[in-house]
Amino acid sequence: MSKGLTEKVIAFLIDLDGVLYDDNQPIPGAAEAIARLREKGYPFRFATNTTMRCRASLRRKLAGFGIEVNEDEIFSAPVAAARYLRGQGRPRVFLLLTKDAQRDFAGLEITDQQPDFVVMGDMGREVNATLLNKAFRLLLGGAEFIALQKNRYWKTAEGLTLDAGPFVVALEYATGQPARVIGKPSPDFFQLAVDDLGVPPAQVAMIGDDIEVDVGGAQRAGLKGILVRTGRFRETDLQSEIEPDGVIDSIADLMEYV
Amino acid sequence: MSKGLTEKVIAFLIDLDGVLYDDNQPIPGAAEAIARLREKGYPFRFATNTTMRCRASLRRKLAGFGIEVNEDEIFSAPVAAARYLRGQGRPRVFLLLTKDAQRDFAGLEITDQQPDFVVMGDMGREVNATLLNKAFRLLLGGAEFIALQKNRYWKTAEGLTLDAGPFVVALEYATGQPARVIGKPSPDFFQLAVDDLGVPPAQVAMIGDDIEVDVGGAQRAGLKGILVRTGRFRETDLQSEIEPDGVIDSIADLMEYV
Repeated sequence: MSKGLTEKVIAFLIDLDGVLYDDNQPIPGAAEAIARLREKGYPFRFATNTTMRCRASLRRKLAGFGIEVNEDEIFSAPVAAARYLRGQGRPRVFLLLTKDAQRDFAGLEITDQQPDFVVMGDMGREVNATLLNKAFRLLLGGAEFIALQKNRYWKTAEGLTLDAGPFVVALEYATGQPARVIGKPSPDFFQLAVDDLGVPPAQVAMIGDDIEVDVGGAQRAGLKGILVRTGRFRETDLQSEIEPDGVIDSIADLMEYV
Repeated sequence: MSKGLTEKVIAFLIDLDGVLYDDNQPIPGAAEAIARLREKGYPFRFATNTTMRCRASLRRKLAGFGIEVNEDEIFSAPVAAARYLRGQGRPRVFLLLTKDAQRDFAGLEITDQQPDFVVMGDMGREVNATLLNKAFRLLLGGAEFIALQKNRYWKTAEGLTLDAGPFVVALEYATGQPARVIGKPSPDFFQLAVDDLGVPPAQVAMIGDDIEVDVGGAQRAGLKGILVRTGRFRETDLQSEIEPDGVIDSIADLMEYV
């Protein structure tokens, strides 16, 4: 990564899983890098597609790794979706979300009677046929479909596990209507996060371990994309059509540039 | 429908839902039409994508409508899939099916340990995250994916309800691998049914209420397709690109031609 890049960049979006921690282990130097950003006065947000936890739970998880953050520095897919919905007047909303993630939707009118929107994230083991049929009928009844993300699967203690994406495409197939995806790599997500930072997109860098979702998604929304060699990074990512604006070994190396 | 058509046709495939019964009511004249076919010595099979019931249950359901059939006259998607699997050596099979539908797979080795095939049909309320994750991991482990059908939804007492299709596409999306679909309109289904009849495809007519699945599917497999104006039939079906070989008001009218 060139020093020139970070001279133009004045704010950061930082992915969580694979960048700050990996398999429930913190990445060495992650806590120090975040402290350094804070000390130097760079605005930043943690930008994650995690949809099973509210921002309060994510803050506690990070604190467990010695990474101290404020709740309003966490910009997850549920937070982005709640922000989007609050911008749509006073919508009635049906949530296909864990109880924990539902906390980020406080203040919105949550209902299963003629909602304006059906919002779906990863429900883990809580997803079932009764809930999916209810959502299906509400969508047929005219509700708009918001997907927090369309990730295919992720790694849990049980092994590779279905994420929200398969259930989103199930309802898309049943209804014939595509969902509006709010999480990464949707431009909506990056725009909402940049609005939250109050900085022009071209001066914001997204730091992530996914060449497609983090780097490609950020670049399509007019941000810079910096790839780390931790998490799901593989050397073949560097042969992708997507060219990162910078590549660093880990988040710890950000300290050399800021 | 012309008399000429039925002179060439010497055997029939007959859809159940929408042709013999509708909303749990028998179609008037259906029982008599089946009795007439039998009396005249036409071989026939009942060809249905229903995947929640085994053929023994379907026989009892038809008997409740006064339609007496033998189990081996019922050629459902589960029966077709079991037939297909029995032709694949001695496969190990994992079933995502109701207990009732699993009865049609008797004699196959059913296991959740390194199966050769994962077979999915409509599980109704029995489908859940644990089962779907298990199937997902078995597919990643190398099992082939067999879908009994990919219907989007169907009508139950509760209203429009998700069928097998949405859950099939969920697993296709998660694994990146398409399923082999055995039920209508797959050519595999019609070929297996025609093999069961022991009659050349060109001399078999499929009678159904779905212009696309029944008529189009049959024609693509080299059979004739006869459309009935009961069940899900709508007049606009006759403007479809698919041209039925015959159209009759209901299964009762078949008696004029045989």
